[in-house]
Amino acid sequence: MPAAEFALIARHFASAACAAPGDALVLGIGDDCAVLDIAHGQQLVVSTDTLNQGVHFPLDADPYALAWRALGCTLSDLAAMGARPLGFTLALSLPQADDAWLSAFAKGLNEAALRYRVRLVGGDTTRGALSINLTVLGRVPQGLALRRRGAQMGDLLCVGGVLGQAAAALPWVLGERTDTAAAAALLKRYWQPEPQIALGRALRGRASSVIDISDGLLADCGHLAHASGVTLEIDAARVPVDPLAQALHGSEAALAYALRGGDDYRLAFTLPKRCLEGLQAEGFAVQVVGRVLAGTAAVALIHHGERQWVQGGGYEHFAQGQHD
Amino acid sequence: MPAAEFALIARHFASAACAAPGDALVLGIGDDCAVLDIAHGQQLVVSTDTLNQGVHFPLDADPYALAWRALGCTLSDLAAMGARPLGFTLALSLPQADDAWLSAFAKGLNEAALRYRVRLVGGDTTRGALSINLTVLGRVPQGLALRRRGAQMGDLLCVGGVLGQAAAALPWVLGERTDTAAAAALLKRYWQPEPQIALGRALRGRASSVIDISDGLLADCGHLAHASGVTLEIDAARVPVDPLAQALHGSEAALAYALRGGDDYRLAFTLPKRCLEGLQAEGFAVQVVGRVLAGTAAVALIHHGERQWVQGGGYEHFAQGQHD
Repeated sequence: MPAAEFALIARHFASAACAAPGDALVLGIGDDCAVLDIAHGQQLVVSTDTLNQGVHFPLDADPYALAWRALGCTLSDLAAMGARPLGFTLALSLPQADDAWLSAFAKGLNEAALRYRVRLVGGDTTRGALSINLTVLGRVPQGLALRRRGAQMGDLLCVGGVLGQAAAALPWVLGERTDTAAAAALLKRYWQPEPQIALGRALRGRASSVIDISDGLLADCGHLAHASGVTLEIDAARVPVDPLAQALHGSEAALAYALRGGDDYRLAFTLPKRCLEGLQAEGFAVQVVGRVLAGTAAVALIHHGERQWVQGGGYEHFAQGQHD
Repeated sequence: MPAAEFALIARHFASAACAAPGDALVLGIGDDCAVLDIAHGQQLVVSTDTLNQGVHFPLDADPYALAWRALGCTLSDLAAMGARPLGFTLALSLPQADDAWLSAFAKGLNEAALRYRVRLVGGDTTRGALSINLTVLGRVPQGLALRRRGAQMGDLLCVGGVLGQAAAALPWVLGERTDTAAAAALLKRYWQPEPQIALGRALRGRASSVIDISDGLLADCGHLAHASGVTLEIDAARVPVDPLAQALHGSEAALAYALRGGDDYRLAFTLPKRCLEGLQAEGFAVQVVGRVLAGTAAVALIHHGERQWVQGGGYEHFAQGQHD
């Protein structure tokens, strides 16, 4: 892009670059690279996520909300590792430097960066189809990163709160329904996901396996089961469903959103029974939704008194009754 | 993308993920984040770069060459900081999972990763317009990161080798000329840029300011001059020009490529005079092309015995004769 456009863009993001003055950033935007301190005894945690127009968000998505959602989703990967966010880079491709669009996007990014106490440390703005890539950097004490692997037979299967809200908001996100006031609380969950960073840090040394729910509870439990080599049994009656989603869509649909809808960015994790009380005492809204059984890489759902083996999600399938 | 496509893609990149078994990677691809060790006394260095189809490379670009070039260009930012590469993340957007394309791209990425001894630590593959984003991670001893700021009056202005080769290859890259055998050496410089990582490390504690030449010598010297608050004087007669570029394009055009062509990814730096001999004795092909003068944020070019003040490049302009 011409230099004048770069200058414009740099001005927009100056605020996110100082949103959360931390002790980690040594050198920020404006040189060839950013430089950060990683304190002794800490490990670096990294993840990258891309959102493309027309694939991950509608053509007319509000840029303010889009920026907030992009940062929230990506930070959720740090939460799933028990990491504390340090900073992030933004690679933004735009068809043209539209001042109004950039201004709204930067406002969302600045607010989200402030909310999550994380700083923009570098970026690249290029001409191209609208695409938002964020790479997040965090730190975790040596050896304490949470993994998908490690679930043990007898552990509880837990989630970090109500599920299915983001999926229940989709008809409004996609413009199929327009009574947005009725769905405002669900839409807020969709556009401003809350990465469970504090919960992730509290799970260090406690949870035996952790993932953030981006593909849906069943699919992401499939990833945990696969990585840990266990069977996860989910009791549908214990899955926390959103009352507003129930009111708007009916109970069965709301449950389906909670089980199969993605984009909630709550943590799902397995936990030795002895650790539950401590977490709840610290104020975390942890919900037990099932348990870890022996077996290999399978997910079972107890629903209306029957056990169903869950298909799909990248793990192997097993015949009913093979495990108990 | 469907799970089967993800599996295909993961298989392609498995080799880059193990290309350079280093001691830094604790947890690689397959969990929510990668985890890396940053040794005590080292700082983390980060940069992100995006290449979009139709903007940064032609529609029919060879995917093998594209991958190699993308990694080389991005690692050049680490070289400019004096950093040692640790790893990189790849965010790849593709219109469809084309097995032949992916196979060639992965081959290029794997070979480049092996060449530069850097490992793929994480990624995100999404559907979208073809776009390649790399975020590179490196390390540098505490306080020794090279900066654009710091050039001192009396320092030499140097470059890390011959310039203008990549720009001289453009007619063949763009298909305007088809006698590729004649330009093979130039095309190799374009598609397989050599990030000057060893030179960058050798400049730690020596160079007073450093940048990698991506926009062209004059423009990037403008960035150094602006960051350092000095005038940089370049003697055109001392700028190392490629003999093949001279033979193919003529001497004046080859010089223009060396001064204004981008994509060379050589380092440009300012150096106290006392440090030159040591660098050359270590075998680095360092060329002195000018000197640092008092003044503010300006670049002057001595050409055919006349001094021209260089316009553009994001820095302020000064009237001729204001500085000496």
